[in-house]
Amino acid sequence: MAGSTPQADPEVVERAARITRQRIAPRAAQYDEQGVNPVDSWRDLWDEGFLAAAVPTVHGGMGLDMPTYVGVIRTIAQGCANTAMTFHMHSTVMRFIDALGSEAQKQRYFREVVAHGKLFGSWGSEPAVSLSRTFLVETALRADGDEWVIDGVKHFCTMALGASYYMVWGAIGGEADMGKALIQAVVPAGTPGIETDGKWNTLGMRGTYSPSVTFTGVRVPKDTTLGQPGAAVQVGVAESFGLGYAAVYIGLAESALAFAADYAKKRVVRPENVPVAMDPAVQRHIGEMAAHLEAARLVLDASAADWDAADPVQRGLLAAKAKYLATEVGLHVTSKVIQVVGGRGAYKDLPAERAFRDLRTSTLMPPTVDRMLETIGKCALGIQEGLFKLGGSGPQGA
Amino acid sequence: MAGSTPQADPEVVERAARITRQRIAPRAAQYDEQGVNPVDSWRDLWDEGFLAAAVPTVHGGMGLDMPTYVGVIRTIAQGCANTAMTFHMHSTVMRFIDALGSEAQKQRYFREVVAHGKLFGSWGSEPAVSLSRTFLVETALRADGDEWVIDGVKHFCTMALGASYYMVWGAIGGEADMGKALIQAVVPAGTPGIETDGKWNTLGMRGTYSPSVTFTGVRVPKDTTLGQPGAAVQVGVAESFGLGYAAVYIGLAESALAFAADYAKKRVVRPENVPVAMDPAVQRHIGEMAAHLEAARLVLDASAADWDAADPVQRGLLAAKAKYLATEVGLHVTSKVIQVVGGRGAYKDLPAERAFRDLRTSTLMPPTVDRMLETIGKCALGIQEGLFKLGGSGPQGA
Amino acid sequence: MAGSTPQADPEVVERAARITRQRIAPRAAQYDEQGVNPVDSWRDLWDEGFLAAAVPTVHGGMGLDMPTYVGVIRTIAQGCANTAMTFHMHSTVMRFIDALGSEAQKQRYFREVVAHGKLFGSWGSEPAVSLSRTFLVETALRADGDEWVIDGVKHFCTMALGASYYMVWGAIGGEADMGKALIQAVVPAGTPGIETDGKWNTLGMRGTYSPSVTFTGVRVPKDTTLGQPGAAVQVGVAESFGLGYAAVYIGLAESALAFAADYAKKRVVRPENVPVAMDPAVQRHIGEMAAHLEAARLVLDASAADWDAADPVQRGLLAAKAKYLATEVGLHVTSKVIQVVGGRGAYKDLPAERAFRDLRTSTLMPPTVDRMLETIGKCALGIQEGLFKLGGSGPQGA
Amino acid sequence: MAGSTPQADPEVVERAARITRQRIAPRAAQYDEQGVNPVDSWRDLWDEGFLAAAVPTVHGGMGLDMPTYVGVIRTIAQGCANTAMTFHMHSTVMRFIDALGSEAQKQRYFREVVAHGKLFGSWGSEPAVSLSRTFLVETALRADGDEWVIDGVKHFCTMALGASYYMVWGAIGGEADMGKALIQAVVPAGTPGIETDGKWNTLGMRGTYSPSVTFTGVRVPKDTTLGQPGAAVQVGVAESFGLGYAAVYIGLAESALAFAADYAKKRVVRPENVPVAMDPAVQRHIGEMAAHLEAARLVLDASAADWDAADPVQRGLLAAKAKYLATEVGLHVTSKVIQVVGGRGAYKDLPAERAFRDLRTSTLMPPTVDRMLETIGKCALGIQEGLFKLGGSGPQGA
Repeated sequence: MAGSTPQADPEVVERAARITRQRIAPRAAQYDEQGVNPVDSWRDLWDEGFLAAAVPTVHGGMGLDMPTYVGVIRTIAQGCANTAMTFHMHSTVMRFIDALGSEAQKQRYFREVVAHGKLFGSWGSEPAVSLSRTFLVETALRADGDEWVIDGVKHFCTMALGASYYMVWGAIGGEADMGKALIQAVVPAGTPGIETDGKWNTLGMRGTYSPSVTFTGVRVPKDTTLGQPGAAVQVGVAESFGLGYAAVYIGLAESALAFAADYAKKRVVRPENVPVAMDPAVQRHIGEMAAHLEAARLVLDASAADWDAADPVQRGLLAAKAKYLATEVGLHVTSKVIQVVGGRGAYKDLPAERAFRDLRTSTLMPPTVDRMLETIGKCALGIQEGLFKLGGSGPQGA
Repeated sequence: MAGSTPQADPEVVERAARITRQRIAPRAAQYDEQGVNPVDSWRDLWDEGFLAAAVPTVHGGMGLDMPTYVGVIRTIAQGCANTAMTFHMHSTVMRFIDALGSEAQKQRYFREVVAHGKLFGSWGSEPAVSLSRTFLVETALRADGDEWVIDGVKHFCTMALGASYYMVWGAIGGEADMGKALIQAVVPAGTPGIETDGKWNTLGMRGTYSPSVTFTGVRVPKDTTLGQPGAAVQVGVAESFGLGYAAVYIGLAESALAFAADYAKKRVVRPENVPVAMDPAVQRHIGEMAAHLEAARLVLDASAADWDAADPVQRGLLAAKAKYLATEVGLHVTSKVIQVVGGRGAYKDLPAERAFRDLRTSTLMPPTVDRMLETIGKCALGIQEGLFKLGGSGPQGA
Repeated sequence: MAGSTPQADPEVVERAARITRQRIAPRAAQYDEQGVNPVDSWRDLWDEGFLAAAVPTVHGGMGLDMPTYVGVIRTIAQGCANTAMTFHMHSTVMRFIDALGSEAQKQRYFREVVAHGKLFGSWGSEPAVSLSRTFLVETALRADGDEWVIDGVKHFCTMALGASYYMVWGAIGGEADMGKALIQAVVPAGTPGIETDGKWNTLGMRGTYSPSVTFTGVRVPKDTTLGQPGAAVQVGVAESFGLGYAAVYIGLAESALAFAADYAKKRVVRPENVPVAMDPAVQRHIGEMAAHLEAARLVLDASAADWDAADPVQRGLLAAKAKYLATEVGLHVTSKVIQVVGGRGAYKDLPAERAFRDLRTSTLMPPTVDRMLETIGKCALGIQEGLFKLGGSGPQGA
Repeated sequence: MAGSTPQADPEVVERAARITRQRIAPRAAQYDEQGVNPVDSWRDLWDEGFLAAAVPTVHGGMGLDMPTYVGVIRTIAQGCANTAMTFHMHSTVMRFIDALGSEAQKQRYFREVVAHGKLFGSWGSEPAVSLSRTFLVETALRADGDEWVIDGVKHFCTMALGASYYMVWGAIGGEADMGKALIQAVVPAGTPGIETDGKWNTLGMRGTYSPSVTFTGVRVPKDTTLGQPGAAVQVGVAESFGLGYAAVYIGLAESALAFAADYAKKRVVRPENVPVAMDPAVQRHIGEMAAHLEAARLVLDASAADWDAADPVQRGLLAAKAKYLATEVGLHVTSKVIQVVGGRGAYKDLPAERAFRDLRTSTLMPPTVDRMLETIGKCALGIQEGLFKLGGSGPQGA
């Protein structure tokens, strides 16, 4: 392809790098240890305008193009994966509002972000369905006058107790035909009937506080749902979850590799009295990681560059390629970095072990490796099918 | 090879399995969380005689052959890797005493174990030398009358504050020629001059409490050192560290895989309403792990079967093969198990994430992957060279 | 498991090694180049009694147990994979005759082997069905008086134009219900109506001459079929195909690795003037191959040891484990050996490139990697299902 | 990086694609079978101007930038790797002449290419030194009046008997100090004293006819050597060998994968009567290959884009990254494609097996995998060192 490829705006990415270095990274270990929402780092992002990264400029946001957005996520993840991941969840809700919301909804919700620094979570996962190949949501929205009544159980409810709104994925009437029933409601935190035991204790990504939450007769106005039923998986926004995850994995792996290289340069062993970095075996380990990581990053960048012009099916492919490779390489790099560092690699006062835990945990977020490979394979085989396979009769009106 | 291969005594292994199930496994999560010595589990091992597993029967021990010993380690590791690993360190000290100790030393130290349930640690690692290809110990033992005065810094001092004796690896006169200077002293806990800041906070194997320890003018009687200088790496005992580590890794991976299989059988997803185990993709993941894990276990068993008849160079090879494959397979299985389980695989109230952390941590114990591969390769290439390459002129008298 | 494990008879294996070294291996390159049946090597096997390796002693055969048989296959494959593979096909037909044949059939066919050195092929593959997950045979046997009339197309007809009999897999009446229709007929070579264009030109295993063959109105007596319809996949013999393939792969990889090690010891490079074997990087490559190859061989031996006491479902698992690991390791080793040797590794006058081609080709023989992993996984998940999933209603009478 | 990245000229690449499809690809199987120089395909390249791809426009050549050049190599390799590889060797000699030649030499040699379609080979390999980590050439050029007298043995002499000139790598006076002695002479084919037994029979790349060649008192004028002694490895041209190899590997893998995808779409199996492409397991295999192959191609393209502005050390890194990843992915893809296709994948009348052989063979060309990883690792570790480590005291005048 001749012509120029969209690339990240270096000035914006450098700004993200600066606040990551100065303010976000220093808090990362603490959020990990305590397993709490990275509230202060969110505030730093807001201070610099980043909470509105995916809010259109017409609404006062930064309106970042995808290459720049991905560069920002990756950069923040180099310092604190929890901050990057929650920021990405929030930003993806912004994209949904932009794609599906009415003008009034955009005005209302974007202003909450731009003017007040509010956070928005997205709660889609449910206990019974998450490993299935067919997309299904069982949380029910039942109409009652000009209100919706929501009942159901969500788990992995990221930013619970921390955000101000939660975009809840539900099915109108509890129907199984997602093409006709799937809908997202923007539910304010604190609405009566939302309950959680607050339990959240995991291997990694501990600062993406994500307990299970139960909705019992939760009432919200009708105008809190976004777009037409079934539309949520037709607008090419859901696919961007995976692209951002990939950016987090790459950022995590990059910081782990940088740590290992730095360690090898400084660590001098006896009796040779040379840095570990002079050992050809160490050079090869570092070299192998660097090569694969650069390849994965180039795929991420290429997917981001092609994003804005792509249709939903293509976006499913772009995200799948980026997330699959970032998963494979990220798991490999964060594990091998510890091996290269040696026994101290497991110490909690060095950053390698956190990257290792965060990577293994965050790569569990959907789509799974098997689903991504099927998506990529179907595309290579000319079988046109998007990321989502809906339960029921297919998208409404299709 | 015709004829029968030595195999583990199933009755002894089953006894280990029973106390592991009933008493040791239930405490595993707690030792991990608190990062403390598994003192109660050590007591259970003593109750059943296992603390004397490697003590000869003539001294009142179990005198287990290597296949049975390895079977016991593997079985305990299925329930609590920390208990298995510390038990293995202790047992390896028993082997050193048996191989190098005088009759009086054997009487004295074995009685402490058999009659009183005392634990023995082995402290060899040092900050400056651990990644090197040449074996070197800088902790110095200087003769002063009928005493040794010990000075130096050890790290990864497993069972610190928990065991009663520590077999400290040192160099007579602080000399660099290990063939002439290497010596092990059995130092009682509480001897004046031993100090530790007690810091121990790691990714995994958190119950193998292993802070750094400083020796400043520590005095012990001359008859606490084992054998002749340089002998410690010539008797085929040091090589057994690695064999036991391999048993721990296999046990960890086996329990992780069993958990994943059990989870897949019980976890039913909607809308299909079938267990995850019915998905051919899941079957393949499980199958691939099971096949590789069985292969690694067969290598472990074969190494154990050949152990007692092998010379030190051969034992270096037997241990390297077993530990290398257990490392590769163990890292793969404990990571992939989490992937197969999905998002909940990272939950701390399920056992998969602990196995993942423990495996990554314990495989950092020497020899490194590179050193093991060189050992195996040299053997396949007919280059006779043991596990240890000593600094200096080579073994005394050789 | 306590007690002794059945192991290969070393005297028999050594006899196979001797004729392989002296007579079979020297012809291997020529059979490969010409792509013809290894007729002279078959004769050597007969001379030493090996053509009757799987014929019971009561019928004048060697009646080898499975460990010894597998050891023989592996040993022959170290010298000539084509000879080993065709010998294994023939021997497996012997096992079918022993399991399913009438006493009269055993007398007749075994005598042809023992007394006259005749070869028996097995023709099962068909163009339309070979990649499917469901076992189906479309070649039809239709009854006409006391004869069967056979029509159909077989491909990969190993030993065509070379053997004296072909055990042809067919379906009575051309029915799709394999449980009721599957049957094997022992068809003499030269029976009218058997035609082949003789085309056979492949990457590797070129001496397992295997063109496509068409059956048009081929008539054989009724007493040439073995056992009851559907029985062919119920007696635990079909599973042994895969076990023998695994032995071939291991033998191929072992000879490739031995070549590389020997090459590295003899090849001296300038300006260092040391053998390549002294390079730690080369040692690691050799070591890594040796470790994985030994693991795969131990699995093969373990499967062979457990074979005779196993039921058909268990045999499916034993074969799947052995063949899967031998496939993975064999592909890796035969490729990496060429890398270690360097540019000359591709020369046709060195044996590495033939092993590379033979391995890649022979691992295409069913079951596929995916099917093997499913078999192993289902077993680990407690899902009892044999190697074969039959089209139709299942085994007759079941 | 903001701003535009240099990209391949699509019109030039499409032109290469057209002649590859129409004229070059159809002859590929034949060159492979016969093991001869692809003379007719060279002529086709000349007809379209491609033999002068790396000749500056001022000398009548195409003067392709590196992205376009790499795109052309990759495209030709999709049809015939032998043609692509020899074309690349020739083009690299053009780059040496451009970088090191006098104006008179440029006039003379470029004219031979542009006007007469002459081919130039590059003969550097020697029997004794090829696996070493230190660069050494033993072929000697001794001055005799206004002539050089060349003595030595070269192997892997690509295009022997086919090209018109051979750029021979030698050492002035046979000295070992490459920094002072290394020189390249452009020797006309047919010069007396050049002898070869013409033996060339290899696994793959059989059309890169490359026998060993002996130089005995071969006399050439003094003005046939290029540049100052030692300069050949200081101008960033030698590094481009590897970049072009990477393009060949990617092209080979791309055509293999395209074949597999096409096969899976067309191959319908019974009893299901659906194309193999509908099997999720097949989709995943295809998807996994496609993702990794795209990643490797993006690295190749990125290295090409950065090439022209890079210094020699950077070019060593750019080439190492591209060649390493293309090697890994190429070996994997060409092997797995055969597995996905199944038994027929090994047939010589399908293209998969040739790609498999060519890939395994061509990836043996230096630098080796170990050297590439060290290069990448050293760069990541901040250790500045180029691709070449010279025997002797270092570059003259440095």
